[in-house]
Amino acid sequence: MDADALISCGAMTLQFVAEYWRSIGKRPVVANIQPGYLRQLLPLEAPEQAESFTSIIKDLESTIMPGVTHWHSPNFYAYFPTANSYPAICADILSGGIACIGFSWIASPACTELEAIVMDWLAKAMGLPEFFLSSGNGGGIIQGTASEATLVALLAARSRIFKERKVEDPTLTLGRLLDQLVVYCSDQAHSSVDKAALIVGCRLRKIASDADCIMRGEQVQAAIAEDRAEGLIPFFIIATLGTTPTCAFDDLVSVGRVCEKEHLWMHIDAAYAGNAFICPEYRHLLNGIEYAESFDFNPHKWMLVNFDCSAMYLKDRTHFVDAFNVDPLYLKHAFQSSAPDYRHWQIPLGRRFRSLKLWFVFRAMGLDGLRAYIRKHIELAKYFISLIKPDDRFEIVFPAAEQLGLVCFRLKDSPNELNERLLKALNEDKRIYLVPSMVKQKYILRLAICSWLTEEKHVRFAWDIISEVTAKLLSK
Amino acid sequence: MDADALISCGAMTLQFVAEYWRSIGKRPVVANIQPGYLRQLLPLEAPEQAESFTSIIKDLESTIMPGVTHWHSPNFYAYFPTANSYPAICADILSGGIACIGFSWIASPACTELEAIVMDWLAKAMGLPEFFLSSGNGGGIIQGTASEATLVALLAARSRIFKERKVEDPTLTLGRLLDQLVVYCSDQAHSSVDKAALIVGCRLRKIASDADCIMRGEQVQAAIAEDRAEGLIPFFIIATLGTTPTCAFDDLVSVGRVCEKEHLWMHIDAAYAGNAFICPEYRHLLNGIEYAESFDFNPHKWMLVNFDCSAMYLKDRTHFVDAFNVDPLYLKHAFQSSAPDYRHWQIPLGRRFRSLKLWFVFRAMGLDGLRAYIRKHIELAKYFISLIKPDDRFEIVFPAAEQLGLVCFRLKDSPNELNERLLKALNEDKRIYLVPSMVKQKYILRLAICSWLTEEKHVRFAWDIISEVTAKLLSK
Ligand SMILES: Cc1ncc(COP(=O)(O)O)c(C=O)c1O
Ligand SMILES: Cc1ncc(COP(=O)(O)O)c(C=O)c1O
Repeated sequence: MDADALISCGAMTLQFVAEYWRSIGKRPVVANIQPGYLRQLLPLEAPEQAESFTSIIKDLESTIMPGVTHWHSPNFYAYFPTANSYPAICADILSGGIACIGFSWIASPACTELEAIVMDWLAKAMGLPEFFLSSGNGGGIIQGTASEATLVALLAARSRIFKERKVEDPTLTLGRLLDQLVVYCSDQAHSSVDKAALIVGCRLRKIASDADCIMRGEQVQAAIAEDRAEGLIPFFIIATLGTTPTCAFDDLVSVGRVCEKEHLWMHIDAAYAGNAFICPEYRHLLNGIEYAESFDFNPHKWMLVNFDCSAMYLKDRTHFVDAFNVDPLYLKHAFQSSAPDYRHWQIPLGRRFRSLKLWFVFRAMGLDGLRAYIRKHIELAKYFISLIKPDDRFEIVFPAAEQLGLVCFRLKDSPNELNERLLKALNEDKRIYLVPSMVKQKYILRLAICSWLTEEKHVRFAWDIISEVTAKLLSK
Repeated sequence: MDADALISCGAMTLQFVAEYWRSIGKRPVVANIQPGYLRQLLPLEAPEQAESFTSIIKDLESTIMPGVTHWHSPNFYAYFPTANSYPAICADILSGGIACIGFSWIASPACTELEAIVMDWLAKAMGLPEFFLSSGNGGGIIQGTASEATLVALLAARSRIFKERKVEDPTLTLGRLLDQLVVYCSDQAHSSVDKAALIVGCRLRKIASDADCIMRGEQVQAAIAEDRAEGLIPFFIIATLGTTPTCAFDDLVSVGRVCEKEHLWMHIDAAYAGNAFICPEYRHLLNGIEYAESFDFNPHKWMLVNFDCSAMYLKDRTHFVDAFNVDPLYLKHAFQSSAPDYRHWQIPLGRRFRSLKLWFVFRAMGLDGLRAYIRKHIELAKYFISLIKPDDRFEIVFPAAEQLGLVCFRLKDSPNELNERLLKALNEDKRIYLVPSMVKQKYILRLAICSWLTEEKHVRFAWDIISEVTAKLLSK
């Protein structure tokens, strides 16, 4: 706990990061190295003796940075964005400095209490239903990732259905039930749903989305009917708001009605798009959320909060506590009934003081600042559309209800193989970085606005490159 | 990405943390507030407009700090330690500043490569078997917590046994298998094992540990025989090195031999004690590790690396990739065969650049510095023993092979209820903080050396308080 070293070495590190941020636009966006590059640069064993902090910082540029893909480069358009900002980094310094492990209220009360408060702030800022507020039976929790939130929701739903079915048939075993359980999601849902189903070990049935990549109640209803007829037990569905391939929004209202009727637990995964709901003009996309048992999105994607910070809301926390409650004496405390013990709502035991990040970002940016940030990205995506639309070589594909910061396009009326070659050529060019997707047998290119630093001129630059590389490809 | 604000606000935050570290010994170790205290101090909604960073920092002392339990206070002796240090915090600044999401090699190659390298450094520094190095079929990964490592190991083992049994009986379903699977652990194992078994949904059988709280092969063998006779399928065991209640070390050699013979997957949870293996004098406690399929411990407990950083080693990574592999196009890349994609070895998809923390701490402290840190804590525990041992009112209970930094004691020949009152009186006194445990029907007090700042004088102070509070209690 060397306070002086913290100040001096911390300042050196901040300086390094600040310089990095200032120069990031000039760096090649994708690392230009081969697998194994770093092993050739670093020693084979840890040093016996301490080294100077200056020498560590000096090595960063020569060893680490050449292998970094710059997610915050204004030329990074791959995946979905991941957030960061100076207040979030400051909050992380504080969380690291205090370094409490807030698994229960007593382990560090501020850690639990601030989390409940800022999660309520966030719910109100987004206009989420009241039942997600901590004042009722529900509440918010910061999970590490959307993948964990999906898994946690699935486990709570499994626990609920097991309890219910056990009443009817006291000889029922979990294994026997598991062989009958069915989870549903759209064929556009994120791979983390497959992973959660794999982990829990239950059947996953993908519902064919419509031509706009939207999952609708009718198809869900039909699938449920089929499965019930086969003796299976439908119990859980993941609806996605803002799918990874095309930012499609499942039809919550029709899906939700089916869930209500059929007694399915609806979990909403709004990993990326959920962030937009702090802007009132996108709230209509939340219609139907009243049917959800749980909801999750990632402030670490688009709300200026560093990874990890996934905001999950539960309608009825007892299902979660039931699913996870293990209570040895060394973790018991006198306040268990008056405050949430977040360890019962998550997979890990230990937890960082992550709510500080949300608190700092809310205060340093204000809701106004956060909305402006979201809107700017959406404007830039529109700007890209305005550039590509008039060009006859391209088509914009699967335009979502709101494309938000993502644009999906491909070479018009052309085979997948040609589009694949275009993507390859673009990424080999290395001036911008995109990832593809395969949707309804179509190979498509995804351009997601990702960086705080992206401005119109960068989008124009990206467009010029796409246009130039396409010209070269088509002239071959 | 405001570089100037990062430097100035970062410096302010570092200053706050440095002051906190300097004053931590003078703060009451446990928060002295009631549930709900913070809601009365903070607004009900997030601010619309940005606030100044100075005002945020100013509010810390009046709102957050009163609710913090000071895990790094020299008077904190509860749970097990959690680590922090200035190089780890600096590395977090960097990780937050670069903010890449290293789920696959291509997503940011340095992130994956540094992790493989420093995990190899760590394995070598601890003298772990070669099969845990990344050069073979195994390798190391940083998980968030020991709880996740246990779950991941359990899932990989489930995937292995399912594959094997399916060959014998192609009609086997996972649910049917699950109803037969048995997981074993000592009755002293951590509650995260209960949680992992709950999540996976399989039977957990606790093996009675011996009088020294050690799980031995003989008891494991007997339990397996019983379970096989009932048609069950033993497949997984967690051996603990350094149990939470008393820091007991399961007998890896005899348990490991049984696992080999009975084809059980042995996972070792050395969450706290594992850190000591960087000191050669404790390495004999690792005898038998050659029987393990997986091993995990928490540098975030005792190796100066902030939470979260749990170091997990796998003997054969294919079992993990098999258990978790979901591979959509937007995550595929050209280098999948030449570099590990850590997303297949863990529950979440996204991952922070956590290896920077290990790298910075190794270099800034040197292995020598880390060993000195571990040894000092162990010396302080011995010093506490030297103070309490001559006092006839107390007995030291369940002394482990190596107690490391933990001492377990109670009032000699006295009922649990009196010991419970002693703990309550100590924690109400609030000058030091301990948590109890219940071991073999005995209520015991645990004193764990936790803080970097703890010196002989603090241990002496703790002893004086224990002595004084006991005198008062016994005179009633
Ligand atoms: C719709 C959706 N769900 C889930 C995820 C996974 O997020 P995480 O890494 O937080 O698990 C993503 C990531 O892009 C996503 O787009
Ligand atoms: C033996 C043991 N295993 C597991 C854990 C849980 O650690 P984590 O919070 O990293 O899951 C602990 C925590 O004290 C422990 O002592």
